[in-house]
Amino acid sequence: MNYSMIRYILCRVLEFEALFLSLPCLVGIIYHEKSAVFFAAVMAACFAVSLIGRRFKPKNKVFYAKEGFVTVSLSWIILSLVGAMPFYLSGEIPSYTDALFETVSGLTTTGATILTDVEVLSRSAQFWRCFTHWIGGMGVLVLIMAVLPLSGSYNMHLLRAESPGPKVGKLVPKVKNTAMILYGIYMGITLAGTISLMLAGLSAYDAVTLAFSSVGTGGFGLLNSSAGSYSVAVQAVLTALMLICGVNFQVFYLLLIRKPKEAFASEEIRYYFIIVLLSAVMITLNTENFFDNIFLGFHHALFQVASVITTTGFSSVDYDKWPEFSKTIMFLLSMLGACAGSTSGGFKISRFIISLRSIKNEISYVIHPRGFKKIYMDGHVVESSVTKSVQVYAMIYIFIFFGSFLVLSLNEFDFTTNMAAVAATFNNVGAGFSLVGPSGNYSIFSGLSKFVLIFDMLVGRLELLPILILLSPGTWKK
Amino acid sequence: MNYSMIRYILCRVLEFEALFLSLPCLVGIIYHEKSAVFFAAVMAACFAVSLIGRRFKPKNKVFYAKEGFVTVSLSWIILSLVGAMPFYLSGEIPSYTDALFETVSGLTTTGATILTDVEVLSRSAQFWRCFTHWIGGMGVLVLIMAVLPLSGSYNMHLLRAESPGPKVGKLVPKVKNTAMILYGIYMGITLAGTISLMLAGLSAYDAVTLAFSSVGTGGFGLLNSSAGSYSVAVQAVLTALMLICGVNFQVFYLLLIRKPKEAFASEEIRYYFIIVLLSAVMITLNTENFFDNIFLGFHHALFQVASVITTTGFSSVDYDKWPEFSKTIMFLLSMLGACAGSTSGGFKISRFIISLRSIKNEISYVIHPRGFKKIYMDGHVVESSVTKSVQVYAMIYIFIFFGSFLVLSLNEFDFTTNMAAVAATFNNVGAGFSLVGPSGNYSIFSGLSKFVLIFDMLVGRLELLPILILLSPGTWKK
Repeated sequence: MNYSMIRYILCRVLEFEALFLSLPCLVGIIYHEKSAVFFAAVMAACFAVSLIGRRFKPKNKVFYAKEGFVTVSLSWIILSLVGAMPFYLSGEIPSYTDALFETVSGLTTTGATILTDVEVLSRSAQFWRCFTHWIGGMGVLVLIMAVLPLSGSYNMHLLRAESPGPKVGKLVPKVKNTAMILYGIYMGITLAGTISLMLAGLSAYDAVTLAFSSVGTGGFGLLNSSAGSYSVAVQAVLTALMLICGVNFQVFYLLLIRKPKEAFASEEIRYYFIIVLLSAVMITLNTENFFDNIFLGFHHALFQVASVITTTGFSSVDYDKWPEFSKTIMFLLSMLGACAGSTSGGFKISRFIISLRSIKNEISYVIHPRGFKKIYMDGHVVESSVTKSVQVYAMIYIFIFFGSFLVLSLNEFDFTTNMAAVAATFNNVGAGFSLVGPSGNYSIFSGLSKFVLIFDMLVGRLELLPILILLSPGTWKK
Repeated sequence: MNYSMIRYILCRVLEFEALFLSLPCLVGIIYHEKSAVFFAAVMAACFAVSLIGRRFKPKNKVFYAKEGFVTVSLSWIILSLVGAMPFYLSGEIPSYTDALFETVSGLTTTGATILTDVEVLSRSAQFWRCFTHWIGGMGVLVLIMAVLPLSGSYNMHLLRAESPGPKVGKLVPKVKNTAMILYGIYMGITLAGTISLMLAGLSAYDAVTLAFSSVGTGGFGLLNSSAGSYSVAVQAVLTALMLICGVNFQVFYLLLIRKPKEAFASEEIRYYFIIVLLSAVMITLNTENFFDNIFLGFHHALFQVASVITTTGFSSVDYDKWPEFSKTIMFLLSMLGACAGSTSGGFKISRFIISLRSIKNEISYVIHPRGFKKIYMDGHVVESSVTKSVQVYAMIYIFIFFGSFLVLSLNEFDFTTNMAAVAATFNNVGAGFSLVGPSGNYSIFSGLSKFVLIFDMLVGRLELLPILILLSPGTWKK
């Protein structure tokens, strides 16, 4: 294990955390809020530790996949531990466990809250909550790689460990350029989203924060009613932003370099939009009696479908009162997630497609043992190592899911609450059903349960392997 | 596809069905019940069809794995369709869908009932319900192979398609002898169970029927209270019978031929008993306030653990009132199931062990890409084809589970009921929670839902592939 490289990168992460904290600090100064002091203090501490920590540059640059996974895991843990400090120090979230839960929920773009009233928070704290979604959406190490003049083999290991999807590819030969393109697109969408939200009638502050939350597919809002009290226009912009950010960012890149044919050749995108549309139509028909007309019904159905499939977790209505069929569709969509290489969580549609095809393959193998077929996606052969990793992914997913579910049952809440809470955190959705539905929150859980849910959010966002490798004894053996 | 061989075997199956029906017919005659007539009528019809159908012996004996799967699937479907007739004709179950549900539930050793009152049934109908558990427990084709002088390559394909577990092995070189040994052990346990239940105070009729239900790990009972109104002694015998029949029958064979060392070398057995004991202790502690003393608490905890892990589904108390933690343990155990090669359903512990090890392997592969390790079980290498089939099994399992769950949500019952109903049928447990808990039944569901649950029971008992291959268009292409 190359400890000095890891130390060096983690110090860089702290520096970036300090930069991130400068924004809510600025918001605090603008609105004359006391909390600005705490953001500034944590900022200063980050800078100081980073300066000391990276005085000695690492000589040994050997960096394998395991170092990549460990670095990414530790980065996210440090970002969370430090990011929770301003909430805790300012007293806005009096319990550090709760502050940590809220920060992890923010960074992992989950959007599950332990707050019973988000409207009493200072503007700087609200801004920080939403901004953590934006930071976590594309990933911090991707940003560092885009900005800093680093080079070497470890870039690819870090990109692979932090980015979602069964197979992470570079858009262009250099990792640094790939990272820059990704963040460029990300910023472009955020800017367009902010302007659209302002045109739809929101103030600049509201537009920026909500754009962060929706582009990062996070789900933290500024109001206790989530997105319920906004105009239909604002809700429609949010729907569009969420749906856009559920798309693999590679598609936008292909569009940018004017290769629309390649962009829309992606099977995942086609499945994504078909699933979204089909689900929205089914929910519209199923919730007919809940809305004045079918257009409004479709508007809210599409909003909720976009919200759960991209694992954002906004709500425009109290969908927990909807018929069981609609709720079940939403539950299943939240487990599925949107496209690989997007900011969404969940299992991802590409894994879903590969799973279906490998099942089909296995059945056809039994029928015709001599006619072994390969699995194709987007016209290319899916390597057996990818298929295998998807299968193992599914199994790890089940084990962590049910393990967490068992621990949560100790709280003696109902079956639905426990299962919804695990599904909502593990898939980084945030909003669940029953006691963790749109009108509930996560303050009800015990400390142990909160730690399990924090674990689930991190494991879910980093797609299982990084955290498991961090915790695996084999990683630390010489 | 070798249609004539399939036709021939299916006719044999019908003959055996007629033999099976002779027993409840006899019970009806003994107790002077009108229903004996209907059993006799269906019996006669089976014989007649079989006699006509197998007049032409198949010339072509080519029989591949796909024929094996198709034959097994069709056998079970025919057994169910015909086995439901006496219930329907006698009017004891007025709807044919319900009669089919009850029969499939019996044959697949599920034990889910659509009856609101089982005590009003005639004795012959009650006997038939419990006897179907016994028939389905070890499998019909296994019985046919044990009894009839058939030989050829297809034996192994049939055994493999009907027997549970990730890897089906023969006990002795000849399939016929393997089948005989399996049924010999099965009958021995049934006989011992019947005698023990009589010694514990039951009448001969009650003892035989309950032995069928528990040895087949089915769960149909004679009373509306399931096993709740029996004495502690009877309940203890049932616990023992269920636990014994959750063990891989290979172990009993090894004990019979005096190889105890090999018998207890099985890792699956060790995991099985550790899981049972641990779960029972946790539930005992968790349900402390529900019982007069801790011994009675342990008695009922062990009974329920044995009942769910072997997917029998008896209840000695209304466990739906137990704390959420205990119920969650039971829910998870019912998904897990007991050992491969037993009469239990569920995912099976050996698949669980292989899954855990392949996860560990994948993580270790990321950490040390050059140090590829093999997966071991019971000291032998698990072939990669077995590991792969377990992984694909897990994925098919998830898809069918959630697909069924979605269809059930159309009934507008609660989340828990829907999930419990799917888990209880798909894993062949029978007893679930909420509306399908110990005090509920499956009569509440719509026709569509009942058909989905019938599908789940069959697919679960035959371990996914046979029915999927039957339904796969590729099977029927020339």
